Amino acid sequence: MKYTFSDRVQSLKPSAIREIFKYAADPTVVSLSAGNPAPEAFPTKAIAEISARIFQDDPISALQYSVTEGYAPLREFISKYMKEKHSVGSENDDILITSGAQQIMDLASKAILNEGDVVVCENPSFIGSLNTFRSYNARLVGVPIESDGINIDALEKTLKTEKNIKFIYTIPNFQNPSGVTMSLEKRHAVYDLAKKYGVLIIEDNPYGDLRFSGEFLPCIKSFDDEGLVIYSGSFSKVISPGMRVGFTIAPKEIIQKMVVCKQGQDVHTNIWSQLVCCEFLTKYDFDAHLEMLRNVYREKAAYTMKLMDENLLPNITYQKIDGGLFLWCDLPESVDMQKFCLDAVKNKVCVVPGTAFMANPEDKTNSFRINYSTPTNEQLKKGIQILGKMAKEF
Amino acid sequence: MKYTFSDRVQSLKPSAIREIFKYAADPTVVSLSAGNPAPEAFPTKAIAEISARIFQDDPISALQYSVTEGYAPLREFISKYMKEKHSVGSENDDILITSGAQQIMDLASKAILNEGDVVVCENPSFIGSLNTFRSYNARLVGVPIESDGINIDALEKTLKTEKNIKFIYTIPNFQNPSGVTMSLEKRHAVYDLAKKYGVLIIEDNPYGDLRFSGEFLPCIKSFDDEGLVIYSGSFSKVISPGMRVGFTIAPKEIIQKMVVCKQGQDVHTNIWSQLVCCEFLTKYDFDAHLEMLRNVYREKAAYTMKLMDENLLPNITYQKIDGGLFLWCDLPESVDMQKFCLDAVKNKVCVVPGTAFMANPEDKTNSFRINYSTPTNEQLKKGIQILGKMAKEF
Repeated sequence: MKYTFSDRVQSLKPSAIREIFKYAADPTVVSLSAGNPAPEAFPTKAIAEISARIFQDDPISALQYSVTEGYAPLREFISKYMKEKHSVGSENDDILITSGAQQIMDLASKAILNEGDVVVCENPSFIGSLNTFRSYNARLVGVPIESDGINIDALEKTLKTEKNIKFIYTIPNFQNPSGVTMSLEKRHAVYDLAKKYGVLIIEDNPYGDLRFSGEFLPCIKSFDDEGLVIYSGSFSKVISPGMRVGFTIAPKEIIQKMVVCKQGQDVHTNIWSQLVCCEFLTKYDFDAHLEMLRNVYREKAAYTMKLMDENLLPNITYQKIDGGLFLWCDLPESVDMQKFCLDAVKNKVCVVPGTAFMANPEDKTNSFRINYSTPTNEQLKKGIQILGKMAKEF
Repeated sequence: MKYTFSDRVQSLKPSAIREIFKYAADPTVVSLSAGNPAPEAFPTKAIAEISARIFQDDPISALQYSVTEGYAPLREFISKYMKEKHSVGSENDDILITSGAQQIMDLASKAILNEGDVVVCENPSFIGSLNTFRSYNARLVGVPIESDGINIDALEKTLKTEKNIKFIYTIPNFQNPSGVTMSLEKRHAVYDLAKKYGVLIIEDNPYGDLRFSGEFLPCIKSFDDEGLVIYSGSFSKVISPGMRVGFTIAPKEIIQKMVVCKQGQDVHTNIWSQLVCCEFLTKYDFDAHLEMLRNVYREKAAYTMKLMDENLLPNITYQKIDGGLFLWCDLPESVDMQKFCLDAVKNKVCVVPGTAFMANPEDKTNSFRINYSTPTNEQLKKGIQILGKMAKEF
C-alpha cells in the first residue's frame, strides 16, 4: 500500500530537538538540550497525599468521564486567582482546561486558521508552538526579538504589509529560547498594534511564575478591554509537566469553538490530574510553593551564569536571565554555529542549534540554546567547561 | 472585536448529546442518554495501590515530561498482548499511546484527510468520531448497518462511485449506537473491498472486551497483510475513561505522521496514568479483571433487556446485544421520533434521538439510543417503565 497523507503534514518533520535527543540519550553525553523543569521543584509529597485522599474519599470522581470544559472547581479557582493576582480575565472571557498548554496552540489554530493564513511570531520562538501552527499550513512570519522584546517597528511593518494575519504569538516572560522579557512599554505597544490592525494575540506564559529576580510585569492580557488576547497558562513548570494540565483564558466566543475542537480531540483532560491540581492549588500554600520553586531556579541559574561567565566569555556571549529555563548564547560571526553544535556533541555535550527556533529555514541565527534546569550542577559544570574549551579554540 | 473562525469550524456544533445532557443534569430526570462505563467495574483498589507504590518508589517518573510515542513498557506489553491474544500487529506496524481513543480519530484525520476528502462510515455511527472527521472538513458518506454489520453491497457501490475516499470508519463489535456486531464474513468482505479500492480502514474497538455472550470474532486488523488498517484500542471501558489512555496499532509510516501531529497537540499522554495502566496490565490479573467486568455487564444488560421485553414490546422493538454499552430502539413509522424523545424528557426520562448518530442531517432514522451501563438498576426500571407507558399510548 502506498500511503498518501494530507497536504498539511506532507512536509512536517519531527521536532529538530527530538533528533538531538537521540544523541542526548547517550549517558556519556551531558545534555543541555532538554527543557524539563527541575524535578526537585515538583511538590511530590503533596501530590501523593492528595491522590491517596481522592482514592479514599471518592475514587470514581477521578476515574469516570468528565466534561470537556474542565473540572468546575479548578476553573473557578484559576479564574479567581488570575483575576486577583494578575488582573487577567473579564466578564467577556471564559476558561478552558487543556491537556497542557501545547493543546491551546492546537485548538486555537484549529479554530482560527485557514490554510495559508499568517501567524506572526517572535524570531526565534518556541519550536513546539511553531510546529503546531505549521501543522495547520499557516505561514509563519518572524519578527526579530531584542533584549527588551519584539522589535515594534518591524512588527508594525509586518502587520501593515502581510495579508490574512490571524494572530501574533508571543512569550513575554523569559522567552523560549531567547530568555528575553518584554518591557512594559512594548507589551502596551504590541497590544495597541493588535488593536489597530484587528488581529488577535496568543500570549503564552508558561514561565511567568518562575521569575527569580527583577520586577514583575503585567500580562498583555491584563490590558485586554477589547477581547483580543488568548492567554495560555500551564501547570507544567509549577506543579508537574507529566500530568499535562494547562488552561486558557480567552474571549467566550473563541473558547466555545476551542471546546468543540477539544471534544473531538481528547473529550476532556485527564480528570485525576485536574482533581490533584485543584486540591494542591486550593488546600495547600501555593504561594509558598512558588517561593520555594523560585529559590531553586534562582540558585541554579546563578550557578550556571557564573560558570558561563568564567568559561564562555568573551568568545561566547549570552544575555542574563531573570527567570525561565533557558539561556541563549551567541557565537562570533566567524564561527559556523551548526558545526559548533555538532562538534559539541562529539565532545560529549549537547546544545540546541538556534536554527531550530527560527520561523523559516532561511532566517539566519548564530546562536544556540542551553537549558540549566534539567542537568545536575555537576553536569552543568562539565558541559559548560567543555563548551568553554571549544570557545578558547576559536 | 468581530471574530472570524476557520472554515473547518464555522459550522461545527457541540455534540447533540451534550445538549441533551443539560436535561439529564436535572436530578429528577432518569438519564439513559450517557455513555459512561459502569463505575462498579473500575479497578479502583488496584489503581490506588499502584499509584501509591509509584509515588513511593519513583515519583519523578510519573511527573516529568515523557516521550510522544508513549511509555515504552506499556507499548511493549500492548504489542505483545494484542499479537498473542488477537493476532493484531505485524512487523510493519507500530504502536502509539494516545489521550483516549478519541485522539486516534483526530490524529488519523489530521495526517490523512484533506478538506473535502470522503470518510465512509456505518450509518448510524459514533457521533464523537463523526464530529472529528467533520472538524477536518471531511465529507461523510453513511452506509446502512444491518443486524450483521454494514451492508456490503451498499459499501461497494459507495467505494465505486465516490471520489477521494480516504478511509472506512467501522466499529465491528457492539457498535455504538446500534449494538450490532459485524459477522466474520462481513469483516473479511470489508477488508477485501478496502484492498480492492485502495482505501484505509479505521477499526474502532472500544467495546471488544465487553463481550458477555456469543462467540468471539477476530478483528479486521488480524487479516491485515497489506497494511490497510488503523486499529483503535482504548482502556476507557476496561480500566478508566477519566485517565484518557488509548492506543493505536497501525502501519509504521502512518504512526510516524500521527506522532508528529501528537507532538503539536499535547506532547504526550499523561504519563502518570500510563504508568498506572502498565502496572495494572502487567502485575495484576488482567484476564480475571475482564471476566469480572463481563459479569457486571452481562447481569446489567440482562436486567435491562428483561425490562425492555416487559415494557416496550411490541410497540418499541430493539436488537438484543452480546456486549457493549448501548441498545438501539426502533419506533413504529407512525411515531415522530424527535417528538417522542422530547416527550420522554417531559416525562423525566432522557434518551438520545437517533438523528444524532447519522452521517448527514438528511439521513432518516426512527430509532433512539439507550445506555444501560451508567444508570442504577432502580433508575433503569423507572426510566424504561416511563418509556413503556408512552409506548402503550401510540
